[in-house]
Amino acid sequence: MEVGFLGLGIMGKAMSMNLLKAGFKVTVWNRTLSKCEELVEHGASIGETPAAVIKKCKYTIAMLSDPAAALSVVFDKGGVLEEICSGKGYVDMSTVDATTSSQINEAITKKGGYFLEAPVSGSKKPAEDGQLVILAAGDKTLYEEAIPAFDVMGKKAFYLGEVGNGAKMKLVVNMIMGSMMNAFSEGLVLADRSGLNQQTLLDVLDLGAISNPMFRLKGPTMIEGNYPPAFPLKHQQKDMRLALALGDENAVSMPVAAASNEAFKTARSLGHGDSDFSAVHERTRDRRRF
Amino acid sequence: MEVGFLGLGIMGKAMSMNLLKAGFKVTVWNRTLSKCEELVEHGASIGETPAAVIKKCKYTIAMLSDPAAALSVVFDKGGVLEEICSGKGYVDMSTVDATTSSQINEAITKKGGYFLEAPVSGSKKPAEDGQLVILAAGDKTLYEEAIPAFDVMGKKAFYLGEVGNGAKMKLVVNMIMGSMMNAFSEGLVLADRSGLNQQTLLDVLDLGAISNPMFRLKGPTMIEGNYPPAFPLKHQQKDMRLALALGDENAVSMPVAAASNEAFKTARSLGHGDSDFSAVHERTRDRRRF
Amino acid sequence: MEVGFLGLGIMGKAMSMNLLKAGFKVTVWNRTLSKCEELVEHGASIGETPAAVIKKCKYTIAMLSDPAAALSVVFDKGGVLEEICSGKGYVDMSTVDATTSSQINEAITKKGGYFLEAPVSGSKKPAEDGQLVILAAGDKTLYEEAIPAFDVMGKKAFYLGEVGNGAKMKLVVNMIMGSMMNAFSEGLVLADRSGLNQQTLLDVLDLGAISNPMFRLKGPTMIEGNYPPAFPLKHQQKDMRLALALGDENAVSMPVAAASNEAFKTARSLGHGDSDFSAVHERTRDRRRF
Amino acid sequence: MEVGFLGLGIMGKAMSMNLLKAGFKVTVWNRTLSKCEELVEHGASIGETPAAVIKKCKYTIAMLSDPAAALSVVFDKGGVLEEICSGKGYVDMSTVDATTSSQINEAITKKGGYFLEAPVSGSKKPAEDGQLVILAAGDKTLYEEAIPAFDVMGKKAFYLGEVGNGAKMKLVVNMIMGSMMNAFSEGLVLADRSGLNQQTLLDVLDLGAISNPMFRLKGPTMIEGNYPPAFPLKHQQKDMRLALALGDENAVSMPVAAASNEAFKTARSLGHGDSDFSAVHERTRDRRRF
Repeated sequence: MEVGFLGLGIMGKAMSMNLLKAGFKVTVWNRTLSKCEELVEHGASIGETPAAVIKKCKYTIAMLSDPAAALSVVFDKGGVLEEICSGKGYVDMSTVDATTSSQINEAITKKGGYFLEAPVSGSKKPAEDGQLVILAAGDKTLYEEAIPAFDVMGKKAFYLGEVGNGAKMKLVVNMIMGSMMNAFSEGLVLADRSGLNQQTLLDVLDLGAISNPMFRLKGPTMIEGNYPPAFPLKHQQKDMRLALALGDENAVSMPVAAASNEAFKTARSLGHGDSDFSAVHERTRDRRRF
Repeated sequence: MEVGFLGLGIMGKAMSMNLLKAGFKVTVWNRTLSKCEELVEHGASIGETPAAVIKKCKYTIAMLSDPAAALSVVFDKGGVLEEICSGKGYVDMSTVDATTSSQINEAITKKGGYFLEAPVSGSKKPAEDGQLVILAAGDKTLYEEAIPAFDVMGKKAFYLGEVGNGAKMKLVVNMIMGSMMNAFSEGLVLADRSGLNQQTLLDVLDLGAISNPMFRLKGPTMIEGNYPPAFPLKHQQKDMRLALALGDENAVSMPVAAASNEAFKTARSLGHGDSDFSAVHERTRDRRRF
Repeated sequence: MEVGFLGLGIMGKAMSMNLLKAGFKVTVWNRTLSKCEELVEHGASIGETPAAVIKKCKYTIAMLSDPAAALSVVFDKGGVLEEICSGKGYVDMSTVDATTSSQINEAITKKGGYFLEAPVSGSKKPAEDGQLVILAAGDKTLYEEAIPAFDVMGKKAFYLGEVGNGAKMKLVVNMIMGSMMNAFSEGLVLADRSGLNQQTLLDVLDLGAISNPMFRLKGPTMIEGNYPPAFPLKHQQKDMRLALALGDENAVSMPVAAASNEAFKTARSLGHGDSDFSAVHERTRDRRRF
Repeated sequence: MEVGFLGLGIMGKAMSMNLLKAGFKVTVWNRTLSKCEELVEHGASIGETPAAVIKKCKYTIAMLSDPAAALSVVFDKGGVLEEICSGKGYVDMSTVDATTSSQINEAITKKGGYFLEAPVSGSKKPAEDGQLVILAAGDKTLYEEAIPAFDVMGKKAFYLGEVGNGAKMKLVVNMIMGSMMNAFSEGLVLADRSGLNQQTLLDVLDLGAISNPMFRLKGPTMIEGNYPPAFPLKHQQKDMRLALALGDENAVSMPVAAASNEAFKTARSLGHGDSDFSAVHERTRDRRRF
């Protein structure tokens, strides 16, 4: 099978490599062309522009760093819009906001093309292992066409209905995750100040009903006051804010998410915006003298 | 090995049965003696009073329903205090508050006895399967003596130091659990009102970094608005309150636990105190018209 | 002195009448012209369009119902933009969001005109009594020129700097007010359920350091469960949300405002969006059985 | 009229002096007798012990520093209990918790005496000016007997029913005050970081519906980061906690009070427990880098 791939950052490179290894014929493009070399060694072709990739392939996947890049690749000179047309599909797996996604969707469908937003849950390691969770929304036929590729890149793909639902699902998941992180952080500090051993708390938690990979992964580094950035705190806080805004539109009262958001904001104001979101722990355990 | 066992409710019966099956000689006592029969069929002896059991055994385990029962078994006529003495141990595995535990500890050590509090994490099923998590605190020698019994009743026993630490560790764990339940409930309602499928949210959560047994177990019934009481909401709220009080003593700011506590209080005031603690979901999704 | 006045709703009519009574020559316009009659009886002239008013007067005041009306009066055919030019001023006293205000500012200054946003604090009664509080921001010279008119319409005018600051100041004030309303409501319910008389609480509050007009005015009707709409709850909640968004931009953690916002959202979801913002009390005192 | 007075601290001295000036015959006692001198110069008699004062007077007022002092004066050798009897009244105007108040009430009524708790709202200045607000609860006949003294010491006395209600009313008022302080602090910081002048915010607030003495008094010093201790933050936080506990007993959900309590706890953990409660502002404006 033949597929286009735009964007060879950490995620995109791992994903397109998995497609090559699984036997897909892949035509790649990246803003910095040198990043294509390793893929070419594994059999990829190169497209000179996004438009060239679109022209060559029945459908094209994009994995770009942010909304600005996602828009640029579609709307700029040599962009997706120049060649997208009836019968061709575009699958944007970048994490973008609902507005960006809608803009791209509108432009592409106006030209007769098919569009699917498909943000993923999971970062570098799951991308390399083909273990991403894919939250797809938009054109159903394109979704079905892309299933063989999704099967290679992810452990599970969901079809969530209309464009926007992929982004919303990510917000809901990240909101729950952000509140859980705060609950966890409060528990660690409470244990410590009450004379309990924090590592023992981790062990007890891991044997019970709320045992989960995040506690296992982040707990030991949080105890050390170490927050290697996997998901930056400022992005987590932005997602909390957007989830609260979504709740606002729908009159859903979310006091725990609201309290968590303020905790993340405090952490941001204390200078931890670029650390991992687990650095909210610095807010909880902040104590100068007592 | 020989061991006494006081209290044959749902938990106590399962635990003492496991001891018998593992080859322990067990002398049992229960307020309603008829409940001893099944144990006797499996080889248990009967003690006529708690005192009689204590007299016969080197150490005795108790699993009683609440602080009142825990106190009565120790202090009333025919109670533990009448026979406890140097060389004998008493292991209270009931879930009681710190004050009750301290009272019992003081009375027993005054008589020369050894005391261990050892509340458990886990309910009926783990008790039957010998998969409890045991949070022991108090006399270290008694703890070591009781390890063979703990190994039969639980999958893991922790020694947490001085009396009171077992109860505190349970509070910390339950506080994290209560906040997580609120985060989860907010996420479910936000998904629903934003046009996402709640079952899909459960599926997505279960594939990610915050996947945990509680979401898996409670999610489907919460979606149905069904809350079969495993851990009553009023007890969960009480534990949130006690955890916040513990935080207050130690100047730990816990805004997420505080918001969660208020949500549980709202649920209580709406009449859900005796339902499962997942019934806090009724508060989150409450909407009469909009 | 001569001044134009656009918009003769409840507020605008009272304000322009005060200008007439104070000896200003006022040229009025209103979408429904019949509303101008009473003003004409008191000596006002009529302009056929906003443009006609602008043409005739050195500066013109507008008091319109919402952002849409504020934009329409400026940008539509016969609107302010057609005649605004160097040497002419436009003072918009409507309550609009920052974006609307900026748009109008930009369009007017491009034409060489002067712009001042000047939202007010206070409703019908203070407007009639010339007791408004005026939060002006934008062109300083125009502000000084408008002082004689502000002196007639308000008890105090503030000059707050650049366009946008008037709207921001209103948000900050309304945020504090919204949190205070929640604190007050919680206190009333706590008093009631603890066996204290709520009217006595009002009396005690009124004698102390936190005595304020809002408690005096709203307390008695809140006790009755009566919320005559002065400032609709949905608008208060919107202002809380915007204030939180402003805090978010500037990394200000506002946990009390966040909790208040969620309480207003709950009240909205219970159907009280069109009641007075004091109807958040229905959320606090909600209790079906206990 | 004749009255006893126990406790001549800052408050008690001002209150008893006012009684003397109004023509009451006052018999005073203080642990450090030298503090009685100034009162004696103004015509007071001295009692050698609390018991001696009780013996001499039909009713006796106490104004002691804390619960421990309140208990000691009643229960210790030479204390109130030795002479209290049928026909004699004891009015405790100290601020104590409900338990302390109940203990004293029980002991006194057992001896046939009459008891009234009567904590006050207001500190040094209102005490000197006879402008306290008196929250009396307990024996109604004693309340009526004490009215002439209350009229001298306070601007208003309330009779609130059974013993305990005086303390509860104080908690409710202080809870509202604590949440208002947080709302105010958040508003000040939001104004500042949004480019608004904080003094202007104070001026705007003071002209509107939420204008109150506390904002006027504390605002200017808070802007300076100066918190002269009038009501220590640790006491305010304790009152928030007790108010939340009262709400818990009665299933009143108070999310804004809960968020405020956590803010006060954070301020305590940052070392501001002994500063004025307005020092919670240090938490709100805390920012190291951003």
